[in-house]
Amino acid sequence: MRMVDIIIKKKSGYELSPEEISFFIKGYTKGEIPDYQVSALMMAIFFKGMSDKETLALTMEMADSGDHLDLSAIKGIKVDKHSTGGVGDKTSLSLTPIVAACGVPVAKMSGRGLGHTGGTIDKLESFDGFNVSISEKEFIDNVNSIGISLMAQTADLAPADKKLYALRDVTGTVDNMSLIASSIMSKKLAAGADAIVLDVKTGSGAFMKTLEDSRALAKAMVDIGNGAGRKTVALITDMDQPLGNTVGNAIEVREAIDTLNGKGPSDFTELVYTLAKKMLILGGKAVNDDEALGMIKSVISSGKALDKLAAFVEAQGGNKDQVYDPSLLKVSDKTTFLKADESGFIDRITCDKVGVSCMMLGGGRASKEDTIDLSVGIELLKKKGDEVAKGDNLAVIHYNDENKLSSAMDELKSAYHISSEKPEETVLIKEMIG
Amino acid sequence: MRMVDIIIKKKSGYELSPEEISFFIKGYTKGEIPDYQVSALMMAIFFKGMSDKETLALTMEMADSGDHLDLSAIKGIKVDKHSTGGVGDKTSLSLTPIVAACGVPVAKMSGRGLGHTGGTIDKLESFDGFNVSISEKEFIDNVNSIGISLMAQTADLAPADKKLYALRDVTGTVDNMSLIASSIMSKKLAAGADAIVLDVKTGSGAFMKTLEDSRALAKAMVDIGNGAGRKTVALITDMDQPLGNTVGNAIEVREAIDTLNGKGPSDFTELVYTLAKKMLILGGKAVNDDEALGMIKSVISSGKALDKLAAFVEAQGGNKDQVYDPSLLKVSDKTTFLKADESGFIDRITCDKVGVSCMMLGGGRASKEDTIDLSVGIELLKKKGDEVAKGDNLAVIHYNDENKLSSAMDELKSAYHISSEKPEETVLIKEMIG
Repeated sequence: MRMVDIIIKKKSGYELSPEEISFFIKGYTKGEIPDYQVSALMMAIFFKGMSDKETLALTMEMADSGDHLDLSAIKGIKVDKHSTGGVGDKTSLSLTPIVAACGVPVAKMSGRGLGHTGGTIDKLESFDGFNVSISEKEFIDNVNSIGISLMAQTADLAPADKKLYALRDVTGTVDNMSLIASSIMSKKLAAGADAIVLDVKTGSGAFMKTLEDSRALAKAMVDIGNGAGRKTVALITDMDQPLGNTVGNAIEVREAIDTLNGKGPSDFTELVYTLAKKMLILGGKAVNDDEALGMIKSVISSGKALDKLAAFVEAQGGNKDQVYDPSLLKVSDKTTFLKADESGFIDRITCDKVGVSCMMLGGGRASKEDTIDLSVGIELLKKKGDEVAKGDNLAVIHYNDENKLSSAMDELKSAYHISSEKPEETVLIKEMIG
Repeated sequence: MRMVDIIIKKKSGYELSPEEISFFIKGYTKGEIPDYQVSALMMAIFFKGMSDKETLALTMEMADSGDHLDLSAIKGIKVDKHSTGGVGDKTSLSLTPIVAACGVPVAKMSGRGLGHTGGTIDKLESFDGFNVSISEKEFIDNVNSIGISLMAQTADLAPADKKLYALRDVTGTVDNMSLIASSIMSKKLAAGADAIVLDVKTGSGAFMKTLEDSRALAKAMVDIGNGAGRKTVALITDMDQPLGNTVGNAIEVREAIDTLNGKGPSDFTELVYTLAKKMLILGGKAVNDDEALGMIKSVISSGKALDKLAAFVEAQGGNKDQVYDPSLLKVSDKTTFLKADESGFIDRITCDKVGVSCMMLGGGRASKEDTIDLSVGIELLKKKGDEVAKGDNLAVIHYNDENKLSSAMDELKSAYHISSEKPEETVLIKEMIG
């Protein structure tokens, strides 16, 4: 088998066999097939596409290119959740304690934030002493004893995907649905869960800007998951404005705790509950949405979901008092307001700009090596559809470094679009696939 | 400017600016732009094509990436000839002495043969003592004193093309008309001629199998040549069977000399005369085909064309007696016949197989490092349209090594296709473009 023949076959519009895909991924991972042949193949795939069969084969090969997380020592059906990324997305922080409190074991590897999007691992470090770098044994033990553990990715999961993604990034071959789907799913498959719930974001703040593209990506990922023998469903959810009312780190943790106390923002609560319902059903704890919702409301009102978060934080060295009294979480008390400079309705809030504004305050990373200030952040007082008068407060900015404030304010201001007409109401959960 | 943006622009179907093409070729030649980005761009070009403007810009940049041969010290209009390659193509050996004898200066760099196609430089070495490795100064001096010189390429002409072609070869991106045309023409432009006559082969033995593709390539090259300010015309000529009756090295030189004596095979003579006419017109020596043909016939009948070859061979250290008595050229006298194993008409003779058969005898190179046996070769006694009876001699094989004979015979046999019906007559010169 020769790589050049595989390139020519795809370029000519033929379906690659599983053997050809295996040859290419194994050879590329080992460094036997050079970047320049792989980038030519990626471009041919961009133009000629991949069938469902090819996409599944590629995903499985990439999942098999490195370690597999072995979750077999954990009792019960392990359900993983993945979001395609957004701004203000603290979902895992509320969702995982809820489902763990309902009896679905949560064993989740998470990443750090980069650019305008935050990461769960960073947010968890807002708890004093919280340790994300635990061993795989501790991780498994914690799930078995308290039902939940989250750690930073240490295992060498899907190294072929890592190498391939870096190459696609510099060769203009990122935007192909099959390649995007296989990249995400290869890591999910290697992370070992039995079932997967996907939160595919759509809208101006999402990687997929249109509902049509989001649907195609969701479908591709669900097909891969089911094809690989993992029950998989996807929700398509709105990212035309930040999720909830906060963007930052400690400030988002506070909002997640509010939500576990039943006092979260309505959009965020709706998303968390909907994802939780799907996880409870896939995890075999509920037979339908109604039963699942009853369980969720019960662990919220009884405080069991909050207790689960506290137990989890404590088990990984964090200060659980901060769970019960979130005012103890360090959010900067140096604040200023962004004010409306005209009257009207909030038409939209550009997510990327809110994320970048938070990054400018020090709350995010421009490059992987940056350290971040967990105490800064943005609280959105007005969201899409709200009526405002000129001079009204739109947002509170929590900052530390006054030198960074002015450009962050400008960026945030440019995120708010005010119109004379009230916009159509946003539907948060747009579709479910699978 | 970033290479990834150039890739994305082309992938999205936009025309690249001359500045972008310059950035990419200069960066690639210097090694600042990696192979993996260039191969992705090549694949995007395969799918999205290049405009005439882009193709010209690419060609000029590649021509400018290394040395330019400076032919300004040569008096008169320098006319170059290029063939896209075939089997039995000894055209330069007869053509250049004819046009030189008519007063068009010939300063030609040539290559060695590889695979099933031969090279002019190898053929010239059939003359005892002939030296192809002369200095550029000798080369220019010889053209000025005797009107003709041919040397092996030593200058670093169009190194960007060399690098790009090697990359395209292993990434499945050879077969794009703009890229093929710019590859050929960049070397021609750097080789310094004022005008160019192109011989674009078409048919089963050519790189371009169909008339349509050959026409497209011819048009692309003519547009480039004229766009670069060099008067350029292209002939599209048949390569559905080997050219002339001989395939080899010394044996082809004998046939070229026969042609200069007015006794060459009709197909080869027709091609040489037609190309010569175009070169004489472009070189400003004749105003039309009729005048040019008169000059050609005159230098043949007077022996001036043959004398020109003798002077050229002598000037580069070769034995000119072999020009006047081609039986002195070393062609192996160990011969055997290929016989027809059925009766009928010769329907076609697959060029590649004849070329490979000659290579198997030792007369060609499988890899660049091979040395070749100039004395072996094949003489075709029957060509397309000829009627044969079972047992008739189809070809004479001149060999040296009996161990190589059997497989070479088998290969040659498989080249001959005999049919019960007489095939349509071949038209050698199919079209002229430009």
